[in-house]
Amino acid sequence: MVRVAILGAAGYTAVELIKILLRHPEVEITALTTRQEGEPHVAAIHPQLAGRLDLHLENLLPAAVVAKADCVFCCLPHAASAAVVAEYLEHGVKVIDFSADYRLDDVATYSDWYGGTHPDPQRVGNVAYGLPELFREQIVNSQLVANPGCFPTSAVLVLAPLLKLGLIEPDEIIVDSKTGVSRAGRTPKLTTHYPECNESISAYNVGRHRHTPEIDQIIRRFAGIETQVIFTPHLVPMDRGILSTIYARPKTDAGEEQLLEKLRDFYRDAPFVRVVDHLPATKDTYGSNFCDMTVRIVRGRVVAFSCIDNLVKGASGAAVQNFNLMYGFPETMSL
Amino acid sequence: MVRVAILGAAGYTAVELIKILLRHPEVEITALTTRQEGEPHVAAIHPQLAGRLDLHLENLLPAAVVAKADCVFCCLPHAASAAVVAEYLEHGVKVIDFSADYRLDDVATYSDWYGGTHPDPQRVGNVAYGLPELFREQIVNSQLVANPGCFPTSAVLVLAPLLKLGLIEPDEIIVDSKTGVSRAGRTPKLTTHYPECNESISAYNVGRHRHTPEIDQIIRRFAGIETQVIFTPHLVPMDRGILSTIYARPKTDAGEEQLLEKLRDFYRDAPFVRVVDHLPATKDTYGSNFCDMTVRIVRGRVVAFSCIDNLVKGASGAAVQNFNLMYGFPETMSL
Amino acid sequence: MVRVAILGAAGYTAVELIKILLRHPEVEITALTTRQEGEPHVAAIHPQLAGRLDLHLENLLPAAVVAKADCVFCCLPHAASAAVVAEYLEHGVKVIDFSADYRLDDVATYSDWYGGTHPDPQRVGNVAYGLPELFREQIVNSQLVANPGCFPTSAVLVLAPLLKLGLIEPDEIIVDSKTGVSRAGRTPKLTTHYPECNESISAYNVGRHRHTPEIDQIIRRFAGIETQVIFTPHLVPMDRGILSTIYARPKTDAGEEQLLEKLRDFYRDAPFVRVVDHLPATKDTYGSNFCDMTVRIVRGRVVAFSCIDNLVKGASGAAVQNFNLMYGFPETMSL
Amino acid sequence: MVRVAILGAAGYTAVELIKILLRHPEVEITALTTRQEGEPHVAAIHPQLAGRLDLHLENLLPAAVVAKADCVFCCLPHAASAAVVAEYLEHGVKVIDFSADYRLDDVATYSDWYGGTHPDPQRVGNVAYGLPELFREQIVNSQLVANPGCFPTSAVLVLAPLLKLGLIEPDEIIVDSKTGVSRAGRTPKLTTHYPECNESISAYNVGRHRHTPEIDQIIRRFAGIETQVIFTPHLVPMDRGILSTIYARPKTDAGEEQLLEKLRDFYRDAPFVRVVDHLPATKDTYGSNFCDMTVRIVRGRVVAFSCIDNLVKGASGAAVQNFNLMYGFPETMSL
Repeated sequence: MVRVAILGAAGYTAVELIKILLRHPEVEITALTTRQEGEPHVAAIHPQLAGRLDLHLENLLPAAVVAKADCVFCCLPHAASAAVVAEYLEHGVKVIDFSADYRLDDVATYSDWYGGTHPDPQRVGNVAYGLPELFREQIVNSQLVANPGCFPTSAVLVLAPLLKLGLIEPDEIIVDSKTGVSRAGRTPKLTTHYPECNESISAYNVGRHRHTPEIDQIIRRFAGIETQVIFTPHLVPMDRGILSTIYARPKTDAGEEQLLEKLRDFYRDAPFVRVVDHLPATKDTYGSNFCDMTVRIVRGRVVAFSCIDNLVKGASGAAVQNFNLMYGFPETMSL
Repeated sequence: MVRVAILGAAGYTAVELIKILLRHPEVEITALTTRQEGEPHVAAIHPQLAGRLDLHLENLLPAAVVAKADCVFCCLPHAASAAVVAEYLEHGVKVIDFSADYRLDDVATYSDWYGGTHPDPQRVGNVAYGLPELFREQIVNSQLVANPGCFPTSAVLVLAPLLKLGLIEPDEIIVDSKTGVSRAGRTPKLTTHYPECNESISAYNVGRHRHTPEIDQIIRRFAGIETQVIFTPHLVPMDRGILSTIYARPKTDAGEEQLLEKLRDFYRDAPFVRVVDHLPATKDTYGSNFCDMTVRIVRGRVVAFSCIDNLVKGASGAAVQNFNLMYGFPETMSL
Repeated sequence: MVRVAILGAAGYTAVELIKILLRHPEVEITALTTRQEGEPHVAAIHPQLAGRLDLHLENLLPAAVVAKADCVFCCLPHAASAAVVAEYLEHGVKVIDFSADYRLDDVATYSDWYGGTHPDPQRVGNVAYGLPELFREQIVNSQLVANPGCFPTSAVLVLAPLLKLGLIEPDEIIVDSKTGVSRAGRTPKLTTHYPECNESISAYNVGRHRHTPEIDQIIRRFAGIETQVIFTPHLVPMDRGILSTIYARPKTDAGEEQLLEKLRDFYRDAPFVRVVDHLPATKDTYGSNFCDMTVRIVRGRVVAFSCIDNLVKGASGAAVQNFNLMYGFPETMSL
Repeated sequence: MVRVAILGAAGYTAVELIKILLRHPEVEITALTTRQEGEPHVAAIHPQLAGRLDLHLENLLPAAVVAKADCVFCCLPHAASAAVVAEYLEHGVKVIDFSADYRLDDVATYSDWYGGTHPDPQRVGNVAYGLPELFREQIVNSQLVANPGCFPTSAVLVLAPLLKLGLIEPDEIIVDSKTGVSRAGRTPKLTTHYPECNESISAYNVGRHRHTPEIDQIIRRFAGIETQVIFTPHLVPMDRGILSTIYARPKTDAGEEQLLEKLRDFYRDAPFVRVVDHLPATKDTYGSNFCDMTVRIVRGRVVAFSCIDNLVKGASGAAVQNFNLMYGFPETMSL
């Protein structure tokens, strides 16, 4: 049994993670941390866990966590995460980090998009990116894995193979993404106040969403190709789900069937990617670790679609998939 | 033209009120106040008003408002409202107060349910309750009107005539109400954070919702009958609308048709009450000042249903209806 | 491994059932039936199952199903179900029936509420009611189990113990239920067309919902007490979840804490009932087999609340719970 | 007073139209038609109109309508509309046609995208397109106006001026549109069944949506420029609203401020277009006849956003705007 701690256990990714780990036969959850006061019982924070996990959220220092856990899932915000990860690693603890701190290739890009100075700069660029469909080997041998952003997951799973296989041009790629509201986290804000975002759709953070450089860099890391993706996120009135609609210019004269076949070949051994013929809906992936994707050709342009559940394949499901690989368990265990 | 000011103009009732008043031929909106800093343009707070009203929200003292307005719609919270209303009245300004400060019969009940000391105790119990269907005469002659609570509106419009006409017993009345989320106001809170309240229904404030004494007292004021209503509000994942399902024991052997006929008679001259045969849905009243109601007899019990839009008949529409009566305009003007 | 067939596999309860059974270690799904034409692949009907189950829906006669299955989950409509169940039982197949055909005590009540003549009258009244929390012994020894209605599950789990323990009076009980739209099934109708039922709440089938006699009869079967429950269902704009708000007169002077304690005692060994202190939200039970309940005393009246997921504890989860008991597997297996 | 008839009065555009016309001081609604049987009262079909309009829906022939109406709003489906419009025109009745029958330039394109033979081919290409912001002069002098499609309205209002003014290139324009469910009409279908489309987003009709040629042709008609727009509609879980996200290559080095200024200039006299600085949300235009738009430059690409209410500016509001122009009433009357 692997003893697992979850740092920052009050949010949506944490509760989703706990639910997955509770059915994992090789995991025991031993600690939950929070920076809030009062040490509340986990069921007071997440009523859906009543009767399922008898732990309190505690304001624990790494030293205390290390005594209880072999592996840490870190759901802290960016910068807060990198401020503690080093200490865990030094104690031989394995870490799956949900923040953006270890996803990028260089600290300069990090500072440009996230601001501030990176707390752990020497590791940046040397950490496995936790998208097993593209980086399985690196993940298997890692003590630290950077769990991917949800938008990048939905975009890169489509773009990386299409680019790598020479099927689309790298310039003028557009990623028009639509996400449910849970992606914005659990802290109440006016933009996610129910009567504001219900019955409405709008774009946000146009031209400055932090997942933009992540998409470009991960594509480059995998395919060796430079992109300058135009990424536009939209907020949709639903709890979960991301649909990315992707526009690119074809590099070959392959038709829809050929493109689909190439994608199916590419993902032949990926248990969580489903290349489908129909137009996928986010609901098809609700609560699951699947990424459903398809592709069309419209007036000479490649138009691709990919759907994930932002809290599962876009966060906690991917984290457990990485965990399984890091520990040599079957990749699909508990997923 | 009546010059109108709106106090507390950043919330949902205020924007709904502005939209109604903008199409009122006898009204000029001259001032909007807020306790927030910065004097934002109204379109920055309410983007739907862009190009429709060119005013800024200002942190104005009553003296400044009085210079601009003949009538004040006060959308301030309870206690804050009664702290300023007196000054407006002294200057001859008419006031329609959205808060609960002037709805109840006595300050003791106010203190029990709202806490604190009432800022303007001598007026309490002497203010017209702004439900024209029941208190038209008092409203017509008033300088100050207490605009009703939304739950009481939905409950009292059904219960008051049934009790007054001797059709139901006053004991063991149950009001099971369901409301959209806009009722909770515009301040972000965890309970109204989209991913918390979407796709979910729950009761709240059971046994201690502040509209409970209002329902009892207004029934007594109108019908002279004491009740101890069991009132249970529920939060429904929708923007607007209140449905109250009301259970009472019949006092006569009148059948459904007779009960409906009695209600139709009672509301013959009420332009905004629709006694319908079908089971009303809140959507039928969306955006309108109507209250739709019907009644059934189930296993010897009277079961009544009433629907309103909480922001219109439950707040801003009722306020304009009262305004029209206070100024001698047609009751339905702009509604 | 138990070979399992699902009859009527195109609906929402069937897909939820399949998802639960796919993670059941003792089950192999061997057949799916439909009365539709064309033998579609299950993933064409339920895209979320793509890559997870490789079966077609077939229009099979019982003789063909019997050759493939030891146990049948019957998701057919009422009357259609009882028309085929007998044949399965004669072949020694175990049956868990989702329809209402075997829930009631007598065919007269069945005909009154469902119309027509019962196709298998001699079994009516002799079939275990699949609410393990109340009827575990009967279920364990049964070849046929009547899976409960969703509204009755939410109501009876609260009412049966309170009545049996003498804590509430049996007369004048009110059950005000709120349900998500999936309860209405998968056949498109105007009332469940998105723009009709979204952003709206209304009651339906008032005084004539078919779950009314089921609630009364199951209470009588368990507690030996006659009731005439006033049951009012409401349609709420959400996919899943039932909240029942239940009003009853107390029979003792027990306070809230004592009532909660009595319920906790009663459900000490029930793994899927959570007696909670807070007001439960349907979201707390989303996707799980739990029933969350609590109780309040308001102005001398007992007001109880219970939440379930209508597709899980209200249908397919309960069915697997019954299956586990019928086969001697742990009650919570795969749930 | 203009006597008005509405053909096909059972749908969503019709009820929205009726609500607008009921507050129009120069209109009397004299007839409502349907092809359904039974002559239902309008309030039986649209409960929100109870007490507001006392007419029945009747299965009337044009001859009967002509006797009652000076102007006809035709909400019939394509082909059905053109089959009757000629007869109305011959009797001197003015017609505002909601269908696509008179929007395109040629019958060949019509047949390609809508199928079948056009019932009234000689008028095709000679009818004013009812987007007053671009074609005011033609509308003013017309007896017949083709009311625009909702997606084309949202796209063309942005693209037409940007192209005409030489600010963007005509090739490789992408229109990624998101619409609420009411756009799909009132006939229940599986794709618009609440539990199917709620909590989900997906694209539909990719590459073959019928509004595609309309966008291209209206741009050409206004700006004289050929486009081959890539148009991708998506279904969003909300009642109303269209957001179009539009990607184009700039033709000049104008910055965001300059582009916004050009658009503001262009729409200086358009009362229903609001060029805003912020990213518009569909909710800002809910229930109104406004089109809110803005523009950004992202990595050298022009990214524009436009929002409308599909039932108002996308249908019935535009129709009344056209009506006002056809009759010489103020353009904004009742809107």
